[in-house]
Amino acid sequence: VRFAVVGAGSWGTAFARLVSQRGHSVHLWARRPALAEQIAANRENTAYLPGVILPEDLKITTDLSVVLKADVIVIAVPSKAMRSTVARMIELGKISAPIISLAKGLDRQQKLRMSELIETTTGSHQVFALSGPCHAEEVGRDSPTAVVLAGTNELWGRRLQQELATPRFRVYLSDDLVGVELCATIKNIIAIATGASDGLGYGDNTRAALITRGLAEMTRFGRVFGVQSKTLFGLSGLGDLVATCTSPHSRNRAVGERLGRGESLDCILADMTMVAEGIYAAQIIHELAKDREIDMPISNAVYRLLYEQTEAAHLVDEMMSRSPKSEGS
Amino acid sequence: VRFAVVGAGSWGTAFARLVSQRGHSVHLWARRPALAEQIAANRENTAYLPGVILPEDLKITTDLSVVLKADVIVIAVPSKAMRSTVARMIELGKISAPIISLAKGLDRQQKLRMSELIETTTGSHQVFALSGPCHAEEVGRDSPTAVVLAGTNELWGRRLQQELATPRFRVYLSDDLVGVELCATIKNIIAIATGASDGLGYGDNTRAALITRGLAEMTRFGRVFGVQSKTLFGLSGLGDLVATCTSPHSRNRAVGERLGRGESLDCILADMTMVAEGIYAAQIIHELAKDREIDMPISNAVYRLLYEQTEAAHLVDEMMSRSPKSEGS
Repeated sequence: VRFAVVGAGSWGTAFARLVSQRGHSVHLWARRPALAEQIAANRENTAYLPGVILPEDLKITTDLSVVLKADVIVIAVPSKAMRSTVARMIELGKISAPIISLAKGLDRQQKLRMSELIETTTGSHQVFALSGPCHAEEVGRDSPTAVVLAGTNELWGRRLQQELATPRFRVYLSDDLVGVELCATIKNIIAIATGASDGLGYGDNTRAALITRGLAEMTRFGRVFGVQSKTLFGLSGLGDLVATCTSPHSRNRAVGERLGRGESLDCILADMTMVAEGIYAAQIIHELAKDREIDMPISNAVYRLLYEQTEAAHLVDEMMSRSPKSEGS
Repeated sequence: VRFAVVGAGSWGTAFARLVSQRGHSVHLWARRPALAEQIAANRENTAYLPGVILPEDLKITTDLSVVLKADVIVIAVPSKAMRSTVARMIELGKISAPIISLAKGLDRQQKLRMSELIETTTGSHQVFALSGPCHAEEVGRDSPTAVVLAGTNELWGRRLQQELATPRFRVYLSDDLVGVELCATIKNIIAIATGASDGLGYGDNTRAALITRGLAEMTRFGRVFGVQSKTLFGLSGLGDLVATCTSPHSRNRAVGERLGRGESLDCILADMTMVAEGIYAAQIIHELAKDREIDMPISNAVYRLLYEQTEAAHLVDEMMSRSPKSEGS
């Protein structure tokens, strides 16, 4: 099977390597020629995935028309670049191959999920989202990983599951595309909150409480949008939430940690080379929750931390001193 | 209110300090006179909770009859010592005070939960279990912590919630005593599994997948015994599971890590001063799951790792290569 992976960030690169080692023909598309040249020359993406050697037969390209010829197209760009990337692709011709989105966020312009955005712009009905606890740094080192592939085309789903799975990369199927994409978006916000707690010097108890109450508000949000329980408590919900909130690899957790130490968002953005999706997700989810009147105290606190310059310590004290309750209420 | 805390291990000591600083009169009971003397002299439990200074008015005792005079009795002994400890207490007289169990395990002899064991031996109907992500090392440093207090006596529950809560120690009430105690027992087994993964050098993806699938089997087990969803996905279920599986403070995770590196159980037990409840829980839960035919692949793997000398790497490979499935099935 011929795969094309669009986007040569850390996850796109690790995914291209995975699929290539699985025995498929793979083109990895990079937007910037300098990056493509560097990867092709070194067989390593030193900027985004240092230390991971890429297979010799993995092809690097900057030509999007090559992507359109693939049997399966994987898009691994940040969510804010999805709209423009897909627009460039459809300018080059009709897309008939199934598409897998690896992006974990929502479209800012219309608050669309990534698969919605891809479906409405390409007209494709074979769009999937792949999510779960899958830090690129670890998939690139073949650490055992389990993910969810979500989509509504069951036939292609089974086919892709077979083509992607390896003894170190387990793929579960799901029909809950909405759930998988919303969970992937919200978990990054909660990761900023746990990062802030780490930055304040709080410990594992606080972090575990934030993850638990974070899942509770992800559940409240999810119920409104029809998210299934198996997704909330599965790999792309709870699983990715736990990985992102506890991993040193998580960019979103790292952003929170710096905020917790008192740095400003401007200062953090100024020296980040990679995108922390949670920064944008916090704004979009804040608006959606407000519209639908969904109680999300942690996400709301992250929004205020990012956009209203509220101090992290103040937010934690505020959350801890809410009136005592019964669990589950 | 006069509290007595039975058991001067790390959690008993941290809990006694917490309640004392909250303004209550507290007796901390230690079984061994040498330990009691050391704590009283240094105002620090250097053996089990080093670095945490205890309040001057916290009283240390080895006299169990003092405990029986308290308004609230907290029992913080390992689960395997619960039966003999309670037996010693009731020899000294009838217990009319409410009892809070901090132990996280089951009774080996009759597979009773701790509150069941206490109720049947003391005749008390005011028995509570306190659980959640609450590593003693962090509560001892006033890191923000949220726990669940579970019991069937609502009036006493509310009273205890008020008497225990501080701005850094949030107490949620629950009526699901069975659920809180079973979750507290199973999470230690899953923590051994994630520790083994860490010991094998696997990363955050693997750990997050184990936690997620671990919660799934905790849920399957819980359903059979009537455990409520709010408990499974709350602080004493998911919350404590996450804390125990990711914390450097967790003794159960540490046991797993050593097993993952290839050490034998005998060798690990030989130099442990504190109890890792998961070692015993793995055996009891294994038997219960077998009786009831509950599918628990991770707990089963931990059992084989502990008691059948199966290699950790073999178990992980086995779990990763099970036939591909849909999530939620």
